[in-house]
Amino acid sequence: MMRLRLVIAYDGRPFRGWQSQAGGGAVQDHLERAFAELCGKRVVVHGAGRTDAGVHALGQCAHADVEREGEIDWPGALNANLPREIRVLRCRRARGDFHARYSARGKVYMYRIWNAAVLSPFELGRAWHLPGVLDVEAMREAARVFEGSHDFKGFAANRGKPEENTVRTIRDVTVGRKGRVVTLRFEGDGFLYKMVRMMTGSLVKIGQGRAPVDSVASYLEGAAGKCAFAAPAEGLYLARVIY
Amino acid sequence: MMRLRLVIAYDGRPFRGWQSQAGGGAVQDHLERAFAELCGKRVVVHGAGRTDAGVHALGQCAHADVEREGEIDWPGALNANLPREIRVLRCRRARGDFHARYSARGKVYMYRIWNAAVLSPFELGRAWHLPGVLDVEAMREAARVFEGSHDFKGFAANRGKPEENTVRTIRDVTVGRKGRVVTLRFEGDGFLYKMVRMMTGSLVKIGQGRAPVDSVASYLEGAAGKCAFAAPAEGLYLARVIY
Repeated sequence: MMRLRLVIAYDGRPFRGWQSQAGGGAVQDHLERAFAELCGKRVVVHGAGRTDAGVHALGQCAHADVEREGEIDWPGALNANLPREIRVLRCRRARGDFHARYSARGKVYMYRIWNAAVLSPFELGRAWHLPGVLDVEAMREAARVFEGSHDFKGFAANRGKPEENTVRTIRDVTVGRKGRVVTLRFEGDGFLYKMVRMMTGSLVKIGQGRAPVDSVASYLEGAAGKCAFAAPAEGLYLARVIY
Repeated sequence: MMRLRLVIAYDGRPFRGWQSQAGGGAVQDHLERAFAELCGKRVVVHGAGRTDAGVHALGQCAHADVEREGEIDWPGALNANLPREIRVLRCRRARGDFHARYSARGKVYMYRIWNAAVLSPFELGRAWHLPGVLDVEAMREAARVFEGSHDFKGFAANRGKPEENTVRTIRDVTVGRKGRVVTLRFEGDGFLYKMVRMMTGSLVKIGQGRAPVDSVASYLEGAAGKCAFAAPAEGLYLARVIY
């Protein structure tokens, strides 16, 4: 057996998220079907993290075990068996103890906002359309509060799971504007379910003047309950997995 | 009556080109239907130029005559009645003698090439995928030959029309690279049918080393017949109409 390490990009719109679904249609389902086509047997693909339906990836990572065969152009062979909205960018041999999820030391997510009256037709499903004023300086000030180790349970959607550890370390958050596009970048050791979308939602509320800059701290301290405002899936990109 | 001047962007993929088609489905059809919805009667929309199926627009221009009504947010009202892949960016009142097509003094087209082994899923239908080496410097050198006034019949698809004047003046052609994206920009007083795609095709052949730099001059002088290599629609953008 040989363990392969893959870097994958996908446009999240046509798919039912990353994780395999009954009836198919998830990115993982498409990858496993492409492997099965090439290997003649079932191959399980393990992703670094799940992305919801409509969420994009610039650099999702995954691993899969295949029987050792001759030299194969894996990206070319897999891409020939995948929808064009999913592309294997790189594939190389990994050590046998490499695990896409458990070996990850961190992740980088990006969130794109289209901040103008009219949404460009080229941004459909690829950015959150927010007309009206966004105070990027206030968002930037609030974003700094996320940095460091905190209990993020105020920024996690409940998945009905038993108590899990909700402490995460955010290494860096940046908020940048380039013309009509406001881009948020989050780098951390890990993220809870819907955490990036809730962090983005809370920053947007501040940018719109609908919440004070210190509202982030209130959620982090658990003084304000849950941040119930999650940004939509379409603006979110899993940019990179750090090993 | 009041003449309106519109600036329109569209993703060309879902549409049967700009020009009205029997059975609908063209960008013009959608705009005319949106006007009819708002005005309660047929309104003809005149575009600055036709774009083929799959060709995009960042700044198509058009005019339309409407009965004078109160103050209307035309972009908002039209966009509410249009597919989201078509957006009216701006709309203002024009002089009665303004004509989107005949008043135009020039046009700017862009052509996008994705020059890497794997096509990003975010570039599907929005760029021409060309893996392999592209010599941008050679393309740039050849592009300069287009500038000035020439008979472009070697760069025009035959539409079975009677002899028309095939002399056009190209003011500027640029070829730029930013990472994996090679962008061509053509500015001229007017363009023949498929002319930008044929100019792009001839430059790409040169960039790939499949034709000499002076092949452009041969086509322009009529010594080489027609350039039969047209770049696909998906990379082409009508960027701006100049009045």
